[in-house]
Amino acid sequence: MNHLIIYAHPNPNSFNKAIADTIENVSNSKGIATKFIDLYGEDFHPVLKGSDFETFQTGSVPPDIKREQNKIKWADMITFVYPIWWSGMPAILKGYIDRVFSYGFAYEYTDNGSIGLLKGKKVMIFNTTGTPSEIYSKNGMHASMKHITDIGILGFCEIEVVNHTFFGAVPIVDDKTRKGYLKEVENIVSKNL
Amino acid sequence: MNHLIIYAHPNPNSFNKAIADTIENVSNSKGIATKFIDLYGEDFHPVLKGSDFETFQTGSVPPDIKREQNKIKWADMITFVYPIWWSGMPAILKGYIDRVFSYGFAYEYTDNGSIGLLKGKKVMIFNTTGTPSEIYSKNGMHASMKHITDIGILGFCEIEVVNHTFFGAVPIVDDKTRKGYLKEVENIVSKNL
Repeated sequence: MNHLIIYAHPNPNSFNKAIADTIENVSNSKGIATKFIDLYGEDFHPVLKGSDFETFQTGSVPPDIKREQNKIKWADMITFVYPIWWSGMPAILKGYIDRVFSYGFAYEYTDNGSIGLLKGKKVMIFNTTGTPSEIYSKNGMHASMKHITDIGILGFCEIEVVNHTFFGAVPIVDDKTRKGYLKEVENIVSKNL
Repeated sequence: MNHLIIYAHPNPNSFNKAIADTIENVSNSKGIATKFIDLYGEDFHPVLKGSDFETFQTGSVPPDIKREQNKIKWADMITFVYPIWWSGMPAILKGYIDRVFSYGFAYEYTDNGSIGLLKGKKVMIFNTTGTPSEIYSKNGMHASMKHITDIGILGFCEIEVVNHTFFGAVPIVDDKTRKGYLKEVENIVSKNL
């Protein structure tokens, strides 16, 4: 199995980084081939331009996008780690999807409608939220966010989401709770790799 | 009334631009003070950085963000025009929200939980989708997208969304249908301004 971790948080001391590190450690300790993308660290450019569309249409792909598509191709399991900002992913990650998951690579149209081109790949998602999880479970925001990401984005490419976990109230919970969250990450990743 | 139009599409010949132009024309013809933000045209930088957080915490705000916040402050009505990409907004607009709708400007925390700071403002949203509207209505994607944008983002700031319209199958519909869409835009905007 090849495992790609895609991490998006501006602060290298954040709890998101602790989650991503935990995932990388589990993956390495199992002897799994693991790659790590730090979107902020790599200063990924997230704005899909008109010129990108043109190159997609002619079948050529900008080199920075081609490089990312090769990583996605290589991976059997992709793990996303990011904070929920405004009920969604940070712009740098949304732009990664906008640009890298392009027509002809991630999906295409046929006479029978659209088909996903990334079948067979699996995804795990770990998110942090400032809002406590009880609130987001009750008001349906967890469900809407999963619908968008797991069905609207990944399902559209026929990728199977095997885990989507939200860790709530991250800025205010105590250290013991955070350690519990990291233990949960370890268990989920260990089970799915 | 002050009216701010926020438009995000890379192609100045797109149908989204035709929608935005229609809105601006209606607004001007009613003699309403109107400002237009073309996020692509202005090359807005959408990546929220660690240093942004620090400046927010100290109460100072980067000058490019301050300028945008002043436009939001000025507006009584804000109209968003953007294509749905991957069941959400383009990264350049998501990053506008991430950076401009900052703590202390758009919301704050009190002992009784979070409160929105933009009460009294209204929003209209016009989206295009590649997928036909019947599919997105039936599978609940329209509902999830509205939940995220209208409640998760704008509702959180206590902004009232008075219209959220999706125009479906835009790349494949005929010219007559597109003209009908623009007529609908005209009617909705005319009614709400």
